[in-house]
Amino acid sequence: MKTFEDVVDLFRSHVSRKRVAVVCPDDESTVGAIRRCVDDKLAEIILVTSGRESRELDEFMAANSDKVRTVECTSVDDAARRGVALVREGNADVLMKGSINTDNLLRAVLDKECGLLQKGAVMSHLTAVDTPVYDRLIFFSDAAVIPRPTLEQFEAMIRYDVDICHKIGIAEPKVALIHFTEKVNSKFSHTLDYVELKSKAAAGEFGNAIVDGPMDVKTACDAHSGEMKGISSPVVGKADILIFPTLEASNTFYKTMSLFGRATMAGVICGTIAPVVVPSRADTADSKFYSLALACVAAG
Amino acid sequence: MKTFEDVVDLFRSHVSRKRVAVVCPDDESTVGAIRRCVDDKLAEIILVTSGRESRELDEFMAANSDKVRTVECTSVDDAARRGVALVREGNADVLMKGSINTDNLLRAVLDKECGLLQKGAVMSHLTAVDTPVYDRLIFFSDAAVIPRPTLEQFEAMIRYDVDICHKIGIAEPKVALIHFTEKVNSKFSHTLDYVELKSKAAAGEFGNAIVDGPMDVKTACDAHSGEMKGISSPVVGKADILIFPTLEASNTFYKTMSLFGRATMAGVICGTIAPVVVPSRADTADSKFYSLALACVAAG
Repeated sequence: MKTFEDVVDLFRSHVSRKRVAVVCPDDESTVGAIRRCVDDKLAEIILVTSGRESRELDEFMAANSDKVRTVECTSVDDAARRGVALVREGNADVLMKGSINTDNLLRAVLDKECGLLQKGAVMSHLTAVDTPVYDRLIFFSDAAVIPRPTLEQFEAMIRYDVDICHKIGIAEPKVALIHFTEKVNSKFSHTLDYVELKSKAAAGEFGNAIVDGPMDVKTACDAHSGEMKGISSPVVGKADILIFPTLEASNTFYKTMSLFGRATMAGVICGTIAPVVVPSRADTADSKFYSLALACVAAG
Repeated sequence: MKTFEDVVDLFRSHVSRKRVAVVCPDDESTVGAIRRCVDDKLAEIILVTSGRESRELDEFMAANSDKVRTVECTSVDDAARRGVALVREGNADVLMKGSINTDNLLRAVLDKECGLLQKGAVMSHLTAVDTPVYDRLIFFSDAAVIPRPTLEQFEAMIRYDVDICHKIGIAEPKVALIHFTEKVNSKFSHTLDYVELKSKAAAGEFGNAIVDGPMDVKTACDAHSGEMKGISSPVVGKADILIFPTLEASNTFYKTMSLFGRATMAGVICGTIAPVVVPSRADTADSKFYSLALACVAAG
């Protein structure tokens, strides 16, 4: 599993087709992502429209009316509620954001009565990175939802990342707990959590996975750096998963990989009744398509 | 000023030659950095040796005995103290770490009686990044010394970065205060500091410089991201300087740029009596040479 296209290939051959409800599929890149899904028969698409005009959507529907279902709504907020309801009622396996504002969609997702929250579950965002520099995909958490993870939230983050790695065939994913040094220091309380997380991993709490840290991003992903530092660990230089201590650090990784690392990013929210895809408006059609594929794998 | 070589060219033409004391210049990459300095007549080198055997150093000295001064010491710790003393006594303008452990050198630098601390000054690490993706050098703080900057430390960090930009000819450097969003939120106390820092900048406290934020790394360095978000600021997409809220975030930026961004990094400690260069053992000769050049500019 070196690239997102490998994930798509796997998905095409092994996973049953999921039903994806797309809320406000009006914009060019969302329509582009949906088009590839339909052309490649990778998922069943349910268009939850808001009544807004969209040339892209009209053209797509004219050409594919026999291949997609449409649920017509009268407003953006109505579309958000209907998309969420489709998932709650068991009529969709994945929820995806189109041109609706993220806050508006999340309001419907987080609604205590009619939303997608699961009692006792931690909601967390998982990102996958396809980078030309590394020999494998990188999965990391949490660049969107949890600013200061607690021990319980760290556990959930690891579980979601490990689960998706298992589903795409990485039998024993390697998890790096990120910090700026290898030293555990009570001044940085996440490093104390890391000690706990390693114990839990050793006790088998995350299934087949190797968890190590604290270590920095370069030590996690570059064997040479580990050698220079004299650190020996099966995770060093081979991390599949990076767990970040704060949203400031994970957002920095996300934005730096995307801009300076020329990487392609895909993301999904886990811990909800079904995976939720909330791409940025600026994301390309490819990035949105890969996020959708990732969510379908997570739902599988 | 797009690349480190531009800085070296400027340095060659404009700045008087500085005297650099190099503590334990035994390893290949340190000797490589010194060799280029001597060959290009960019600085006067003072080798502060520890008595350890080194083929690289012996060969270099055999070929350049007329071009460098040597201060022979009997141990690594002795060499650290002597290097620091050379700066204190006004006989060196820059201190550079060779193959000595960083902690050992810093112990001598931080010594209250005989070290390089300045009363009331904030010691902070400044990094410069030469990246193929961006149209200018990036300067950022602090990836090594200050884990959780206070308002006073943020001020010092900005001042050091702005000062070095002015010295290399960037008349009005653009400073981005990094966070994961544009929103000021009292839950994230650095965003409150950012509001103060912008007021101080507007009052002229940092001289000729534009300070804006909070914003994320991509908004700071990519005009397109700013446009998509509808943010208009002279800093967006054109940042020369990034100020990070924590060491976890800045270290993540450093390591990600270095590994995945294929960037060249240079760094220097500011706020001491003279600039101190503390490269990592894993740094290349080029990276060490650029750090040395940066320190000579900072000392100018």
